[in-house]
Amino acid sequence: MQFDVFTLFPAVFIPYLEASILQRARAGGLLDVHLHDIRTWTTDKHHVTDDAPFGGGGGMVMKPDPVFAAVEDVLGAPPACPLILMTPQGRTFTQKVAEELAVLPRIGLLCGHYEGIDERIRQHLVTDEISIGDYVLTGGELPALILMDAISRLIPGVLGDPDGAMDDSFAMGLLEYPQYTRPAEFRGWGVPEVLLSGNHARIARWRREQALLRTLLRRPDLLENASLSDADRKYLKKVQSEVDPGASQGP
Amino acid sequence: MQFDVFTLFPAVFIPYLEASILQRARAGGLLDVHLHDIRTWTTDKHHVTDDAPFGGGGGMVMKPDPVFAAVEDVLGAPPACPLILMTPQGRTFTQKVAEELAVLPRIGLLCGHYEGIDERIRQHLVTDEISIGDYVLTGGELPALILMDAISRLIPGVLGDPDGAMDDSFAMGLLEYPQYTRPAEFRGWGVPEVLLSGNHARIARWRREQALLRTLLRRPDLLENASLSDADRKYLKKVQSEVDPGASQGP
Repeated sequence: MQFDVFTLFPAVFIPYLEASILQRARAGGLLDVHLHDIRTWTTDKHHVTDDAPFGGGGGMVMKPDPVFAAVEDVLGAPPACPLILMTPQGRTFTQKVAEELAVLPRIGLLCGHYEGIDERIRQHLVTDEISIGDYVLTGGELPALILMDAISRLIPGVLGDPDGAMDDSFAMGLLEYPQYTRPAEFRGWGVPEVLLSGNHARIARWRREQALLRTLLRRPDLLENASLSDADRKYLKKVQSEVDPGASQGP
Repeated sequence: MQFDVFTLFPAVFIPYLEASILQRARAGGLLDVHLHDIRTWTTDKHHVTDDAPFGGGGGMVMKPDPVFAAVEDVLGAPPACPLILMTPQGRTFTQKVAEELAVLPRIGLLCGHYEGIDERIRQHLVTDEISIGDYVLTGGELPALILMDAISRLIPGVLGDPDGAMDDSFAMGLLEYPQYTRPAEFRGWGVPEVLLSGNHARIARWRREQALLRTLLRRPDLLENASLSDADRKYLKKVQSEVDPGASQGP
């Protein structure tokens, strides 16, 4: 899989690409990341990439010319692969969107910066717009790294453990169960006995129930779209009636 | 404002802290970021920070000992300021949470990594848990940078333009209106006439309506919590009836 990233700040990507899972994926030939400095495609003496907004107001806006030139030079005109603008105005990134994008052979990522990006880039160049959450950031660089990290984990072979990605929060539509490692007792705080039992069926059941319980308590909205077995539903019903004894008695 | 970041990968933070708004905030004495490498607080020869999970399963879990030692050495025991664990199991980060945290003088950020973090750290050390979105990442490093970026923008004096942060997406509870800059015509695509009119009242009204329209079309869920004037509601009602002529006729 190849990412082509268009940014004004290529340097901020380097250390993260050289650490973590992304380095392993790149070293293994499973991932290729090309960083393109939009400033390279400016044609004026001062390499200007932004200008004041028409209509006034604070902040600067990214000019259309260098962005069109950079993208079309690298990806062709029109772009030969999806070009995603990282913007708070895009559709919300979720694990499901990561799975959808992980099957593509090549993705272009355009990082906005400053107050915004000229609307004509949005209308005539980008093919998708993605937001990583409902908050305001300085630019699209961190969101682009987030996307690449989440997507790379889903490329077959990137994670050492083939089931690793499946156990994580959201991968099953639930929050993850509690994890414990040595020492078995730390400052007097122990580890749930079941995890030391060696009984794999009991452990699996405890973990599933803990994942259900944690999701119910912290993010009940996720349960609506989780794939639940009959046993899961029965457990949730039992727990809910314990938390709120009136709930199962009806109106 | 001071951030104390506890991580196994301090190097990945550096270039972002030295670019962007974070560098400006640090240079101006408005922001102080201390990076603490958890590995420094290991006591064994090989500086091990992770171990296999009790109960089996793939992946590694961050050990409690070095994390407790690092946090308590830097922040005191118990920690003298909030300690936020970056985890997909936390409460969802939004612009409202950024505003809530931006008034604090000091925040500790704990970056999980590997398959997870020993549950006793969660139960007995951290005071808050935050998720930047419903997707799985390799570690808490990018989420910690996201938090610091979003929060720093809200510290008075960090943004050059005092109204800058107020105009952005979400700051008003709406998506941002379209922005245009020069050239006024690019490849035959123009700029809305109103933005060239010099009529500030008309421009302000157009921008507000575009923000409302964009939010209605892309993220109608945000309108529930946005602060809307009577004129805003009237405009939305008009637009909605144009989009769906049957909607205003009742059942």
